[in-house]
Amino acid sequence: MSEILIDSKSFKNNLDIIASHIKDKNKLALVLKDNAYGHGIEQIASLACEYGIKSVFVKNEFEALKIAHFFDHITVFYGNISPKVPKNIHLSINSLNTLEHLEEKRSIELEINTGMNRNGIPRQNLSFFIEKILSKKLNLFGVFMHNGYGDEKNNDFEEAQKSFLQVKEEIVYLSKKLGFALPRFHSLASCGTLRSGKIEDDLVRIGIAAYGYLGNNFPIPIAESLKPIASLWADKICEQRLPKGSKIGYGGKSVLKKDTIVSTYDIGYGDGFFRHDGSKGELTTAEGYLILPITSMDCFSCISQEERVCVFNDVSSIAKMFHTIPYEVLTSLSPFIKRTLI
Amino acid sequence: MSEILIDSKSFKNNLDIIASHIKDKNKLALVLKDNAYGHGIEQIASLACEYGIKSVFVKNEFEALKIAHFFDHITVFYGNISPKVPKNIHLSINSLNTLEHLEEKRSIELEINTGMNRNGIPRQNLSFFIEKILSKKLNLFGVFMHNGYGDEKNNDFEEAQKSFLQVKEEIVYLSKKLGFALPRFHSLASCGTLRSGKIEDDLVRIGIAAYGYLGNNFPIPIAESLKPIASLWADKICEQRLPKGSKIGYGGKSVLKKDTIVSTYDIGYGDGFFRHDGSKGELTTAEGYLILPITSMDCFSCISQEERVCVFNDVSSIAKMFHTIPYEVLTSLSPFIKRTLI
Repeated sequence: MSEILIDSKSFKNNLDIIASHIKDKNKLALVLKDNAYGHGIEQIASLACEYGIKSVFVKNEFEALKIAHFFDHITVFYGNISPKVPKNIHLSINSLNTLEHLEEKRSIELEINTGMNRNGIPRQNLSFFIEKILSKKLNLFGVFMHNGYGDEKNNDFEEAQKSFLQVKEEIVYLSKKLGFALPRFHSLASCGTLRSGKIEDDLVRIGIAAYGYLGNNFPIPIAESLKPIASLWADKICEQRLPKGSKIGYGGKSVLKKDTIVSTYDIGYGDGFFRHDGSKGELTTAEGYLILPITSMDCFSCISQEERVCVFNDVSSIAKMFHTIPYEVLTSLSPFIKRTLI
Repeated sequence: MSEILIDSKSFKNNLDIIASHIKDKNKLALVLKDNAYGHGIEQIASLACEYGIKSVFVKNEFEALKIAHFFDHITVFYGNISPKVPKNIHLSINSLNTLEHLEEKRSIELEINTGMNRNGIPRQNLSFFIEKILSKKLNLFGVFMHNGYGDEKNNDFEEAQKSFLQVKEEIVYLSKKLGFALPRFHSLASCGTLRSGKIEDDLVRIGIAAYGYLGNNFPIPIAESLKPIASLWADKICEQRLPKGSKIGYGGKSVLKKDTIVSTYDIGYGDGFFRHDGSKGELTTAEGYLILPITSMDCFSCISQEERVCVFNDVSSIAKMFHTIPYEVLTSLSPFIKRTLI
C-alpha cells in the first residue's frame, strides 16, 4: 500500500534553521492546519512536541482535539469551538458573530485585517471589539494578523508590518486604560519570518518552511538549506510485458514505441495526487521512471519493474508542472494514505 | 462549517435510469471506491442499500470494513485483505503475488487484462491462474475486466468486449473440465453500460453515472437525464467593506475596481477544491457570485454578503476550467468536509 514517509531529521533541520534565525526557540510556533499541510497532523505534532514546540495553529476544532495533549496552546483558525474542548484550545476571532456565540471565560486570539483584506476585523473597530471581549469576560490571549505579502519583494509587506505595529501600540494603550493583561502578538508566517532581521513579535507562525519549502519570489539565502520532509511511495499492483504499439490506460493515450515492461502502482488522483493527462509535459518518479498518461483514480502506469517507486521526494517541480504551488500538492494528499515517521 | 449536500432524489433518479436501461435491477452494482467518488462512502452506501443494491466495489480493505454491513458482496480492488475481514468481502486478484499471500477459502474476483494494459492478468495466463486458485482452495467468485474505452467512439471498446467474451467462453470450458462453479462476470462501467444495447454480463459496475455525470466523448441521449447529486456549500467567515483599489488575498492579485463588500468563505484548496489563481478564467459560485483569485488554503474571497454560498452543484464547468474531468474534482474533496443527505 502507498505510503508517505516523513523524514524526522529533515524536519529537525528545518526547525533548527528557523530557530537559529529568530534567535529564540521559544518564539517558534508551528502551523499544523490542513493535516499539517498534508503531512499527517498527529505525526508532525509528535515531532513538534519532541522538539519543544509549545504553541501551534490548526484549522478547526476537529484538528485541535486530535493533538490537544501535545501542546500548551492550540489555536483554532476557523469555525467555532464547543464548550467541551480543553482549556488550552484558543479560538481565532474575526467577526462579531463568532464572538457573540462564545461562552464566558473562553480564550481567544483576535485577528486584525492589516491590508490582506481577507480575514480579520477592521483596525478601526479594535477598541469596540476589545470592549466587547471584556464585557463578555473572555480571555484575550493573543492579537495577530496575517501578512499576505511575505512572498513578494515590494512595499506591501512593510506597510502591513507598520500597520500591525500601530495595532500593538493601540492594544498596549487599551490594556493600560481598561486594565487587561497584554496578549501575545504575532504576524509573520514562514517567508515573512525568514526575510525579517529581528523578530519584534512574541512568536512566529511557521508553516511551509517547517515542511521544507518556501514560497518566496526573491532570493532568501537561508531558505536554500530547508529540506522537504515528505516523500510519497507507491507499491506495484501488477506488471505487464507488452509489445510495441500497445496502448495504455484510459482512451489508449500512451502508445508504446517498443516492447516494454510496464507496471501499475497504487497512487492515483483519488489519492489526491494530480491527474496527469500528458498535456503539461513529462512526469517521472523521483528515480526517473516515466509515468504514463492518463493516470487513473487509483493507480498510474509506469515504465518500471520496481516493487516500490518514489512518486516524489520534493514537490517543487510537480507544482510548477501543474501550474500551482507546493502547498496545494501537499495539502491535497489524501489523509487515508499512511504516514510513517522515519 | 462547509458542507457537502447529497441529493437522495437525484441519486435515485440516476439509479432508476440505469436500472431501466439494463432492464434488470439485480444486475446493478455500484462503485463506491475513493470515498464514493468523494461523496462520502457511508452516506452513499446507506442510500444504495435502501435502493436494494447487493454488490459494490471499493478501493481497499479500509473502505470495505466501513460498509460491509450494508451489502451481500463487497469487492476490494486494491491491496490485500486480512484474515479478520467478514466473508462477504472479496478480493480482486491481478497478480500472482497477491494470490499467493491469501489464505485458503477466501473469495476472489480475477481481473483480466483485455487491452487496457493497466491492471489484470494476461489472458494467456488464465488457465494457469485458475489451476493455482483451485489448488489454493480459493473461491473464484467473479471474473472481470475493465473496459477502458467506454468513453471513446472507436473500435477499441468493441474489441475489448469481444476479448472478454472469449475469456468467458474459456472459463465456461475450464469450469466443466476442472469442476468448479461458474463465477459471475462483469466488464462494463458507466459509459460502457449506457452505450450497450443488451447486457450479457451478470452485473454492471456503475460509478460516475450514479453520481450524475458521464465521461462520454460522443452523444448518449439517456445520459442527459442524469443529475449531479452533490453540492458544495461554504459558510461566511467574515465580511469586509472595502474601498476602490483595495487588494485582496495573497500577493494582492485581485484589486477592487469600486467600493465593494467582500466576504471570505470556508473552503480552500486544503479542502480539496482546486486553487484558483485567476489564470484559467473567471470562477463564480453556483449563484453567480464572483470568487476572487488567489484562493487560500482554507478560504476564498467572494463578492457576496450571503451567510452561505453554493460553490458548485455541478462540477462539469469547473472540471473544464481546470483542464480535467469531473471525477478528479469530486474525488479530491476532503473527507473531513461534512456530508449530509437531503
